[in-house]
Amino acid sequence: MTDTVISSHKKEVVIGFERPFVVIGERINPTGRKLLAAEMAAGDFSRVISDVQAQLEAGAHMLDVNAGIPLADEPAILAETVKLVQSLTDVPLSIDSSIVAALEAGLSVYKGKALVNSVTGEEDRLESVLPLVKKYGAAVVAISNDETGISQDPNVRFEIARKIVNRAADYGIPACDVVVDPLVMPIGAVSTSGRQVFELCHRLQKELKVNTTCGASNVSFGLPNRNGVNAAFMSMAIASGMTSAITNPLHTEIMTAIMGADVLMGHDQDCMRWIRKFREVPPAGEGGEARGRRETRRRRVEA
Amino acid sequence: MTDTVISSHKKEVVIGFERPFVVIGERINPTGRKLLAAEMAAGDFSRVISDVQAQLEAGAHMLDVNAGIPLADEPAILAETVKLVQSLTDVPLSIDSSIVAALEAGLSVYKGKALVNSVTGEEDRLESVLPLVKKYGAAVVAISNDETGISQDPNVRFEIARKIVNRAADYGIPACDVVVDPLVMPIGAVSTSGRQVFELCHRLQKELKVNTTCGASNVSFGLPNRNGVNAAFMSMAIASGMTSAITNPLHTEIMTAIMGADVLMGHDQDCMRWIRKFREVPPAGEGGEARGRRETRRRRVEA
Repeated sequence: MTDTVISSHKKEVVIGFERPFVVIGERINPTGRKLLAAEMAAGDFSRVISDVQAQLEAGAHMLDVNAGIPLADEPAILAETVKLVQSLTDVPLSIDSSIVAALEAGLSVYKGKALVNSVTGEEDRLESVLPLVKKYGAAVVAISNDETGISQDPNVRFEIARKIVNRAADYGIPACDVVVDPLVMPIGAVSTSGRQVFELCHRLQKELKVNTTCGASNVSFGLPNRNGVNAAFMSMAIASGMTSAITNPLHTEIMTAIMGADVLMGHDQDCMRWIRKFREVPPAGEGGEARGRRETRRRRVEA
Repeated sequence: MTDTVISSHKKEVVIGFERPFVVIGERINPTGRKLLAAEMAAGDFSRVISDVQAQLEAGAHMLDVNAGIPLADEPAILAETVKLVQSLTDVPLSIDSSIVAALEAGLSVYKGKALVNSVTGEEDRLESVLPLVKKYGAAVVAISNDETGISQDPNVRFEIARKIVNRAADYGIPACDVVVDPLVMPIGAVSTSGRQVFELCHRLQKELKVNTTCGASNVSFGLPNRNGVNAAFMSMAIASGMTSAITNPLHTEIMTAIMGADVLMGHDQDCMRWIRKFREVPPAGEGGEARGRRETRRRRVEA
């Protein structure tokens, strides 16, 4: 059993094999969102505030915070955004940057135990990010690529994950505080990318005994009906052992797929979260009637 | 590699580990459908005809045909329904009855290699159904329960499946013509039933090397938003190795989950079936934009 505890000053979220899947909202990120980038650079955080609210209402358990704006003072903006978001909500944050100084700026103002997003297997990243993770007592997302790029061989990606976990241990960071991202490639470009991830999630849980996360939306890049692909992917990844994802909770298909997967993994006790969410929805027709059973909203108490 | 070939007089469908998932339409079944039962008993097959058409349009690859009407002459009605359905479509059929005489009546008029639904591990069923399967050169659904009922222990269910496969071999029926149903219990009653099935699918593929099917709708019995649970279940079962299901193709959530799972398993070459189906659907928003990529309907050609 590996529990990764992330916290704010008031609230803990635990990522674990026998727990409900953890959704980390991806929206507070100016990358590819020109309007948000311009606003954040100009000190206007109104859209960040509405993104916080919308993602929490949609069921996010944590929020990723990124302030990657070209030519802007990313460390200062990330720190300001982290402070702002923590003033609005108790959910723990993932502090997201490719710039080490920005990670440190975000960590220095963060109240609680953050998730640092991210370190890779590249030597310079390991040597610069891991000391920060240790200094601030954080957990870290470990992305399974290194100087050689992203391997199409899951064994190579697994070994990079192992290297990061071992290096983290050298810095005094336990494996339970390393959440591995096995890397999700677009299925339209790499037809094996789904199975690579499913196999890696399984091995990362069984052999390396670490929790997992991913940038889930990437898998459907370039395809129509992206939410349909993303929803199937989330359910399949959860069946394979994935324990969290950085994704867009505003897409109801994705959240339904995640909640359904929690039910089917036995991680939604007595299906109560599912029932609370959907009990107002009319029964879905007569799908079960062909098997000779009456539609009912009451749960059966025996098999 | 295990291929189960089912055919009509004109068309083959192959169930296999490295092939697109096979959807067997469940609708032609009067169990729990009073109106259909009354009509079929009275010789009115108009609803059967419309059910054939609707399921094919929705993407069913095979159709299950059941004529289980209390107090009716089930063998005669099943034979008549099989003939009718084969006059309407080339897709192969699953001939479905709990009455051995009805299975024989259906098989005797069927053109092609049918799927017999079903045999269990019960001695009297094995001894009565398997000779029929052999006589007509059919394939058979093997349900993993026996005289002791449905075990909650996946190991017991696995051993029953093994027993049926071995007994079939005694009758000269190869393992590739046995499609095991690991039995799907309602998740609202048995919280481990999802994981039982996922584990069994995996073992049935890896150890027993047989194809699998199930009555998928049962998993959501008693819950609200059944299609949501069923859709997640289908994707997860496919990720675990399930290769076919008897389900309702008219529920678009379920078909989307199955098609998405085919994409993610690499079983939809170049995602062409997905793209054909969904290319008219507007892109699903900016889910990928936070990762810094432009929304596009063109598929990327490299990673």
